[in-house]
Amino acid sequence: MTRDVHLDVVDDSPKEECGVVAVWNHPRAVHLGYLGLYALQHRGQEAAGLAASSNGKIHSERGVGMVADVLNAERLERLDGYYNKNDLSNRGVIGHTRYSTAGGSGAENIQPLVETMFDGPVSVAHNGNLINADAWKHELSKRGQLFHTSSDTEVMIHLLASPDQRDTPDPTGAMLRNLQGAFSLVLLLKDRIEAARDPWGFRPLVLGELEDGSACVASETVALDVMGAKFVREIEPGEIVTLSDEGVHSRRYAAPMSPLSRCVFEHVYFANPASEVFGQNVLVSREEFGKQLAIESPVEADIVMPMPDSGRSAANGYAHESGIPYREGIVPNRYVGRTFIKPTQAERAAAVRLKLNVVSEIVQGKRVVIVDDSIVRGTTTREKMKQIREAGASEIHVRISCPPIVSPCFYGVDFATPEQLIAHNKSVDEIREYLEVDSLHFLSHDGMLGVMKNKESGYCTACFTGKYPIDPEQPLACEVTTKRQAELFAEHHG
Amino acid sequence: MTRDVHLDVVDDSPKEECGVVAVWNHPRAVHLGYLGLYALQHRGQEAAGLAASSNGKIHSERGVGMVADVLNAERLERLDGYYNKNDLSNRGVIGHTRYSTAGGSGAENIQPLVETMFDGPVSVAHNGNLINADAWKHELSKRGQLFHTSSDTEVMIHLLASPDQRDTPDPTGAMLRNLQGAFSLVLLLKDRIEAARDPWGFRPLVLGELEDGSACVASETVALDVMGAKFVREIEPGEIVTLSDEGVHSRRYAAPMSPLSRCVFEHVYFANPASEVFGQNVLVSREEFGKQLAIESPVEADIVMPMPDSGRSAANGYAHESGIPYREGIVPNRYVGRTFIKPTQAERAAAVRLKLNVVSEIVQGKRVVIVDDSIVRGTTTREKMKQIREAGASEIHVRISCPPIVSPCFYGVDFATPEQLIAHNKSVDEIREYLEVDSLHFLSHDGMLGVMKNKESGYCTACFTGKYPIDPEQPLACEVTTKRQAELFAEHHG
Amino acid sequence: MTRDVHLDVVDDSPKEECGVVAVWNHPRAVHLGYLGLYALQHRGQEAAGLAASSNGKIHSERGVGMVADVLNAERLERLDGYYNKNDLSNRGVIGHTRYSTAGGSGAENIQPLVETMFDGPVSVAHNGNLINADAWKHELSKRGQLFHTSSDTEVMIHLLASPDQRDTPDPTGAMLRNLQGAFSLVLLLKDRIEAARDPWGFRPLVLGELEDGSACVASETVALDVMGAKFVREIEPGEIVTLSDEGVHSRRYAAPMSPLSRCVFEHVYFANPASEVFGQNVLVSREEFGKQLAIESPVEADIVMPMPDSGRSAANGYAHESGIPYREGIVPNRYVGRTFIKPTQAERAAAVRLKLNVVSEIVQGKRVVIVDDSIVRGTTTREKMKQIREAGASEIHVRISCPPIVSPCFYGVDFATPEQLIAHNKSVDEIREYLEVDSLHFLSHDGMLGVMKNKESGYCTACFTGKYPIDPEQPLACEVTTKRQAELFAEHHG
Amino acid sequence: MTRDVHLDVVDDSPKEECGVVAVWNHPRAVHLGYLGLYALQHRGQEAAGLAASSNGKIHSERGVGMVADVLNAERLERLDGYYNKNDLSNRGVIGHTRYSTAGGSGAENIQPLVETMFDGPVSVAHNGNLINADAWKHELSKRGQLFHTSSDTEVMIHLLASPDQRDTPDPTGAMLRNLQGAFSLVLLLKDRIEAARDPWGFRPLVLGELEDGSACVASETVALDVMGAKFVREIEPGEIVTLSDEGVHSRRYAAPMSPLSRCVFEHVYFANPASEVFGQNVLVSREEFGKQLAIESPVEADIVMPMPDSGRSAANGYAHESGIPYREGIVPNRYVGRTFIKPTQAERAAAVRLKLNVVSEIVQGKRVVIVDDSIVRGTTTREKMKQIREAGASEIHVRISCPPIVSPCFYGVDFATPEQLIAHNKSVDEIREYLEVDSLHFLSHDGMLGVMKNKESGYCTACFTGKYPIDPEQPLACEVTTKRQAELFAEHHG
Repeated sequence: MTRDVHLDVVDDSPKEECGVVAVWNHPRAVHLGYLGLYALQHRGQEAAGLAASSNGKIHSERGVGMVADVLNAERLERLDGYYNKNDLSNRGVIGHTRYSTAGGSGAENIQPLVETMFDGPVSVAHNGNLINADAWKHELSKRGQLFHTSSDTEVMIHLLASPDQRDTPDPTGAMLRNLQGAFSLVLLLKDRIEAARDPWGFRPLVLGELEDGSACVASETVALDVMGAKFVREIEPGEIVTLSDEGVHSRRYAAPMSPLSRCVFEHVYFANPASEVFGQNVLVSREEFGKQLAIESPVEADIVMPMPDSGRSAANGYAHESGIPYREGIVPNRYVGRTFIKPTQAERAAAVRLKLNVVSEIVQGKRVVIVDDSIVRGTTTREKMKQIREAGASEIHVRISCPPIVSPCFYGVDFATPEQLIAHNKSVDEIREYLEVDSLHFLSHDGMLGVMKNKESGYCTACFTGKYPIDPEQPLACEVTTKRQAELFAEHHG
Repeated sequence: MTRDVHLDVVDDSPKEECGVVAVWNHPRAVHLGYLGLYALQHRGQEAAGLAASSNGKIHSERGVGMVADVLNAERLERLDGYYNKNDLSNRGVIGHTRYSTAGGSGAENIQPLVETMFDGPVSVAHNGNLINADAWKHELSKRGQLFHTSSDTEVMIHLLASPDQRDTPDPTGAMLRNLQGAFSLVLLLKDRIEAARDPWGFRPLVLGELEDGSACVASETVALDVMGAKFVREIEPGEIVTLSDEGVHSRRYAAPMSPLSRCVFEHVYFANPASEVFGQNVLVSREEFGKQLAIESPVEADIVMPMPDSGRSAANGYAHESGIPYREGIVPNRYVGRTFIKPTQAERAAAVRLKLNVVSEIVQGKRVVIVDDSIVRGTTTREKMKQIREAGASEIHVRISCPPIVSPCFYGVDFATPEQLIAHNKSVDEIREYLEVDSLHFLSHDGMLGVMKNKESGYCTACFTGKYPIDPEQPLACEVTTKRQAELFAEHHG
Repeated sequence: MTRDVHLDVVDDSPKEECGVVAVWNHPRAVHLGYLGLYALQHRGQEAAGLAASSNGKIHSERGVGMVADVLNAERLERLDGYYNKNDLSNRGVIGHTRYSTAGGSGAENIQPLVETMFDGPVSVAHNGNLINADAWKHELSKRGQLFHTSSDTEVMIHLLASPDQRDTPDPTGAMLRNLQGAFSLVLLLKDRIEAARDPWGFRPLVLGELEDGSACVASETVALDVMGAKFVREIEPGEIVTLSDEGVHSRRYAAPMSPLSRCVFEHVYFANPASEVFGQNVLVSREEFGKQLAIESPVEADIVMPMPDSGRSAANGYAHESGIPYREGIVPNRYVGRTFIKPTQAERAAAVRLKLNVVSEIVQGKRVVIVDDSIVRGTTTREKMKQIREAGASEIHVRISCPPIVSPCFYGVDFATPEQLIAHNKSVDEIREYLEVDSLHFLSHDGMLGVMKNKESGYCTACFTGKYPIDPEQPLACEVTTKRQAELFAEHHG
Repeated sequence: MTRDVHLDVVDDSPKEECGVVAVWNHPRAVHLGYLGLYALQHRGQEAAGLAASSNGKIHSERGVGMVADVLNAERLERLDGYYNKNDLSNRGVIGHTRYSTAGGSGAENIQPLVETMFDGPVSVAHNGNLINADAWKHELSKRGQLFHTSSDTEVMIHLLASPDQRDTPDPTGAMLRNLQGAFSLVLLLKDRIEAARDPWGFRPLVLGELEDGSACVASETVALDVMGAKFVREIEPGEIVTLSDEGVHSRRYAAPMSPLSRCVFEHVYFANPASEVFGQNVLVSREEFGKQLAIESPVEADIVMPMPDSGRSAANGYAHESGIPYREGIVPNRYVGRTFIKPTQAERAAAVRLKLNVVSEIVQGKRVVIVDDSIVRGTTTREKMKQIREAGASEIHVRISCPPIVSPCFYGVDFATPEQLIAHNKSVDEIREYLEVDSLHFLSHDGMLGVMKNKESGYCTACFTGKYPIDPEQPLACEVTTKRQAELFAEHHG
């Protein structure tokens, strides 16, 4: 039988791994967690889940699909039922949405994971990617530990449950010091939530305050907005924030790395334009990328057109800076989701037309500047350019609001393999030829960073440069990791 | 149990009734029909279906939900299996997507309806609304006819099957002459497809040609684009176009009304911006509405912002005409679909925030012009304005790219009851007060029609004026209908 | 993909078409109807449905599957909601369970059918098979009537709705006089239920009285027992019983045929052993068949064993009459339902073993009499005999409690095609050879009828004799049917 | 919303926990495992699953429901796909069916459990109940082990994975020596299946040989029959049997207890009548129970009637021994499964009638002996007796083919709490009064054991006596368990 195939056969956009959310002790915590996840749907559309603690127990509802499909009325009510509304203490909710169930083995990988440790149940939701997860899996299973998922997250819980960490004054800190890589996580325990960010600061994580003064945490500020929470501050690299009946408390488990490795691609593509990420608004950053692009690569043209929806802000910036009129001549189909496509050329072309329609009244006989956020594989962009030419554009000038992506990400973004990255294999001019357009320019590395505030405190641009802040090929051995992190911690806090 | 509630508790946008599609005798007809429906999803998101004829039989697959959910791989393959790929003659496919299953009695109303008549099976898909359906139901059931749906469409099939029509030289024409109201329909018979449009021309219907020369029909040109078909021409008011193994043939069954009653709201809101409707591109019309609006109601302001996605083209036109910078400071959530909302004020406010987020970095301290396509009930607009004020706008000036909607539509659009229409009950200034904004202007009736090509040949603007081309309260009696139409037909063709 | 296949690949038992039930105006009518259908599940396991009237409307819930799967809590509550519990008048419920959705076109054929006539909605559930349905379909569609199912039942409703019948003093009677064949039906109208039985009396239909005095109808008395109703009497051939707020009324629409054609196979196999059918208990009939079989065909043997569950009563009768000890050495699997079987010989053999296991401790070295109710195709019986031999039986003597089945049934039983009937093609001795058993005897035709009470008033034994009470090949033309029945009615009532 | 309720509101029969099955290296292993589970459906109807190993990996398909519903065609094919049909080595399948998902936390408890240990994946399916599972959970979680189910089975895998056991010459044996209680289990490893039985021999487990010489294991011989396998022998208490590419090998990990504690209730009620359990046929045991009951408690009566289906064999034995005629006057509904019952008295009574109908023609005016296998709570029996009286029986004499059940089982049977057991609270005469019958007798303890072969080697009759072979209230501490078992093993094998 022919299987349902995701329209992503024609989607070469990069995939974010995850979004997380946490709410402590609010009467509508389950529903707020649900709203928060909904607002983070752009960070992962393949699976979702919520876990609620109450009376020392944790109940979770998880599944494959979009937030609103997985967390239907029945499941939300079930969670709400578990979440004790009469006893006002020790009630927390955490949630997770993810791009894919990595490992392919299905439902058991969907977060939040729930396990029972000696001191009770624990649930974890995690955004990021660990470099040393496999090393720890080897070590832990040698000690007799069992694994029933293929996720990084299970490693964290094993470390937390182990007497090596449990019998220290700060088990969560001790656990986190064993990890290398990108992690912004929320941990639900029977009497508190702990939210932490890795010392490199790869992925965002923010603290909010709900209208009744209770605390919440989310991957992005847009989730706070939707939950009706005020943005308090970012959780800092190397920090653990505890939400409990005693209020919100902070401690450091590790020194922040200097410089940091905050992911610049959150601003280029991933984060919601309405979010504040790393201290600045994403939509404004994108407008600025567009303006800088107009400065770096001007062109004589009749109209500036965005590739919807991702290129819209940068195109607007480009138009303002260049003075060329901004018009939207590419119409996206708002209803495209999962669909049924046979892997033939005819069907793929139909799929691209299904996603976008070019308005020939707008482009006919015009010199058009097309602005998009990035090019990953290039196959879809090529199809789109063909559509624009067929609609009658006399010239096509492509402007991309970030540098060429030449290397894969090991910190939580699923671009593609190096072989699939068009800029890994082709020069800018070769890409231009492949796309069959009149000119092609990418924003420069420095131009991009020039838009970022506090750039001296550090950003990861490994996907554009191949320079990785943590060597993905040679993670430290487990014991070394542990020792090194403990030293760093001691240095800083000693 | 609390039920799943559509986020439309906070959606007061008007609802189009339907989209239709038809393909004759193409090897991939089922898949093309599916693609066409997908492209017409904006015309109806509640139910969808396809019917395929082959070897004198008709098989249909229908269900409640979005096109891609209802017509999954299994159902498409089942249709494809029924559709004889070895015998190259007499194979047709028609499809339908609709806003609601009117009558509330569920699945049996989902189109295309399939029935067995004396001369074989027949299937119909219909966009529009009949004024005299109830009168015919009364008459036909008195004659002993049975009804198992509450849809207009079943009336058409009964008329077609009746010896009164069947025993005439043109049964389809005879049937159509019995109808009053808006109807653009496709009829699948064992040896042909017949596509027809009412004499008033309310709803669009276009003819296309596929790459192999075979013919297709759709509600909008965007469906032709997605199917890979060339736009041939509009089907004319009062025309029947037949698609069969003998090719494409046209005949008139009635004189087109003069003036026509083409729905101007298709350009204001309904139709896909990429479509050509009634001879002009919809997106360009909307830009022109925005320019005219800037001419009619200028204002001193810092930025022009669209209400996404419906106000975008008009906002762009307004910005170009006024010279005020265009910026997008309202970010829509692309993933909002069905969701779970309790009908409390807190949840409704959350739902509005879930759909839209305002970027305060953009609006803070600014005099903002907000451009939207229309206001129906006003409740959601009010919530949105509140969000913009809270984000820091110093002044809010609302500009609407059509006149106030004061009357319901009886020709296929589901706005609301008159009582729910804010402009039915309030003056423009009262609406401005209700929205708590600094100024409010609607595009004038003449300004709107000024944008329309060939406006002298006629448009229906009943929702803005209350002047109905066919009296919805007093349809002619059935015998009078029949007689009158026959006379009109004779006058014209005689 | 390999499809789920019914275990009936190894089931050659005859299939009954349907069971019907009706309840008038009881506060728990929906649930009682459900219980009644549940008790009639043995009469059809492929589809089920209930229809409830209230306030002049009729709502139905129907689906493919067993009663308890189709009519789940949600659907029963929905029906219950439609059924007005505050207004105590004009509330009825009818139900249907059936073996197959004849016509293969699926859900639309599932009963009770609901249609809207001129005088309001109507719903029908029907047990039996019409001989002249196709003739009427031809005639009615010629008149312009539409058909959307392939069921006999729709013909009945068309006839009822037609002015030819509607404008007579007794439309239901007039409709029924147009029918030839087997029909026991219940008709739900807005102000009454009408229950009727064909003039030949093929299928059973009984009237009951609930504990509060309200009336109900069912195919078998076992449904009355489960509903907690008292058995009042059989509905007579040619009778219509009306249940309404005016109580229970009876009238004749046709003379009962003389002799009647009551289906003897109801006693042999179909009916529930606990039911009274045609005035006598089914289980006791089966014991008597077994006793008569022992008289007709005695044998020297060590034990009598039933083929479970159908042969149990007859085996017990055989044992009592013969004095040979009764032991149960074949154990059925109580959980066999739908299963997944590949159509290979190995899988089929496994499927037979899955349904039945022979206890070798019981049969080892024994001369065994196996008693079963009937043999249809013989393939399964052959497999079972093989199992018994392999378990060590020294002799196998098969005794069947009815005569050989040589002809198909046209009155509501789906045996098989003549070609598939083993006794159509082979003599008793050839069947014995095919089964590889030591002896084989069938109950004689007269021996069987000798057990039936009032046998002089008539039974149909066409499947054993090929003598059909109504010629299935040559139904009368529609006008002749109507005329003939009217004459018969006049003769009798005139 | 009213929930679906199991008809077991009127079912007070005892519940068996589980059935297990295993097949090594057969081309149709997945399907054979499926057939085996199907044959064991009577041992558990709430959940089922299969796990298949191939190429060092294990894939499982599990779910809530009956075997045929959970393991549908799609899931069987998925398992079959994982199970490498081209590489002929190291391919095993194990399966499990269970009464309930103990712990209530749902899907994660459904067996076979699959986990990843240091030396690869492992899967376990287990029938029985551990006395010291909680003690081990405490101990293991203290060591840092994580639990994600509430099942005993997970404890076993943790012990197996722990270096304490893994680094011994026989990890499986070492693991099993840590357990106290009832366990018959199958363990799927990447290169073998290990099947083991506890040293007390509580639950059955048998070894079979398939037609191609490959080996299989199942809880009961009836599963071997359905798989087409020859019964080889019972797996002995304290034995591990290994199925691998090297063939079938046996070893002892513990001395069998003397006397053994084989569960006599398997013969009274649980096991399939066609199975050989503990060396004798179950159906024959039940006939013998009935004969002994006739000897112990004779009565003057007209007929002997079984309570179907459980009392049939004993009733037959009673009839033969007493000479009173055997007749079946209670007709079970073969289609009763899950149904929808409101917890009212009227609905409960209806539910009992739905399950059983009494034929008054049989019992009217008769002195009736009713034989059943056991009485647990007595509520259903009371309802049934009421039905029989209402059907006209002049006297009712109840005979039960086992002693009164006075104590709960801790070794894998879910009777009820002591408070719910009628014989825990009432004398036999008080029960007779409660049932409102003329006489009541239970089979004596010695009479029951007199039927069992080799009774001197030991049976558990704790439910009838309260004398538990392993103290359920005071399991040994973990270290003591381990030490004591090691000593016992050394004593025996040293």
